[in-house]
Amino acid sequence: MSAKSVVPEFQAANDKYAASFTKGALPLPPGRKVAVVACMDARLDPAKALGLEEGDAHVIRNAGGRAVDALRSVVISQQLLGTREIVVIHHTDCGMLTFSDADLKSKIRKDLGEDADHVAFLPFPDVKQSVVDDVAILKKSALVLDVPITGFIYDVKTGKIERVEA
Amino acid sequence: MSAKSVVPEFQAANDKYAASFTKGALPLPPGRKVAVVACMDARLDPAKALGLEEGDAHVIRNAGGRAVDALRSVVISQQLLGTREIVVIHHTDCGMLTFSDADLKSKIRKDLGEDADHVAFLPFPDVKQSVVDDVAILKKSALVLDVPITGFIYDVKTGKIERVEA
Repeated sequence: MSAKSVVPEFQAANDKYAASFTKGALPLPPGRKVAVVACMDARLDPAKALGLEEGDAHVIRNAGGRAVDALRSVVISQQLLGTREIVVIHHTDCGMLTFSDADLKSKIRKDLGEDADHVAFLPFPDVKQSVVDDVAILKKSALVLDVPITGFIYDVKTGKIERVEA
Repeated sequence: MSAKSVVPEFQAANDKYAASFTKGALPLPPGRKVAVVACMDARLDPAKALGLEEGDAHVIRNAGGRAVDALRSVVISQQLLGTREIVVIHHTDCGMLTFSDADLKSKIRKDLGEDADHVAFLPFPDVKQSVVDDVAILKKSALVLDVPITGFIYDVKTGKIERVEA
C-alpha cells in the first residue's frame, strides 16, 4: 500500500457517514423500482444528479454506461429484485469518445505485453447515438422485460440531464 | 411511459441539482486516481459512504460488485484515465447471496421462455469470500496494473465499511 492510498481517507469519511447514518434497515428491493445504467465517469454522481436516496434505485455503472455490459445486472434487477423501469445516462466529454478499440488493444500490447483481443472495450464516436443504441439494445433484448426505458445525456459542465428521444 | 415513471421526478430533482451546480468544468481523469468497484445495491451510495465529490473517482457498479464484470472498465480507467488504485466493495444482505445461477436460469426459462445459458450471473454464497476472490481476480489479471487493491464489506444496516484482509 503506497503512502498516497485513499484507504485511510475513505475510512475517515465513512466514520463520519456511519455516525450520522439514520436509514436503519432498508428493504433489499429498490423502493422506486428503477435501475439506472450510467457511465463510471468521476464527474457524474447519479444519486445527487437524480435525487436518489439510499434504498431508491439500482445503480449500474461501467465505462460508457454501455447496455451490453449491464445486461447481467439488469436481468438480476428485474427478475429477482422487482425493478420495472430503466434509465440510461451517458454524458458529454466522455472518455469513450477519445479512443478506438484497436487503439486501446495496441496500447495494451505495447505497454503491458498482453493480448486483449478477447475484450470488447465498447468505445463510441457520438454520445447521442450511443444512448439511442443502448436504449434499443435493452428494448430488443429477450432477457429484458417490456418496461419504460428512457435515455439521457448528462452535461458534465452544467450538471443538467437532457432527454434523448429514440 | 406509465404514469408511475420516475422520469418526471428525476428531471425535477436534476433541475434543482443543476441550479446549484458550482463544479464547473472538472478534468476528465479522476482527481483521486482511484476506481471503486461496488455492488449496484440501492442501499449503498458509494459517494456518500466514502466521501467522494464529483471528479474524484471512477465508480463501477454491477450486481454483486463482481470483478470479472468490471474488468473492461478497470482497464479503461487505468490505461486511458490514469487511476492507480482499486477499492472493491461488497455488502451485507446482498441479493447475490439469495440465488444460484441455475435457479435464475430456470426462472428465466419459465417466466420469459428464454434461454440464458450464455450468461454467468455470478452469485456467491459468502460475502467475505466474494471480496477476497474479487480482489484476487484483479491482482492476478494480466490486464490490470500492479496497484493497491483493497476490499471492504459495507453494512447496509449501519452504513459502516469493514476492511477485508486477503
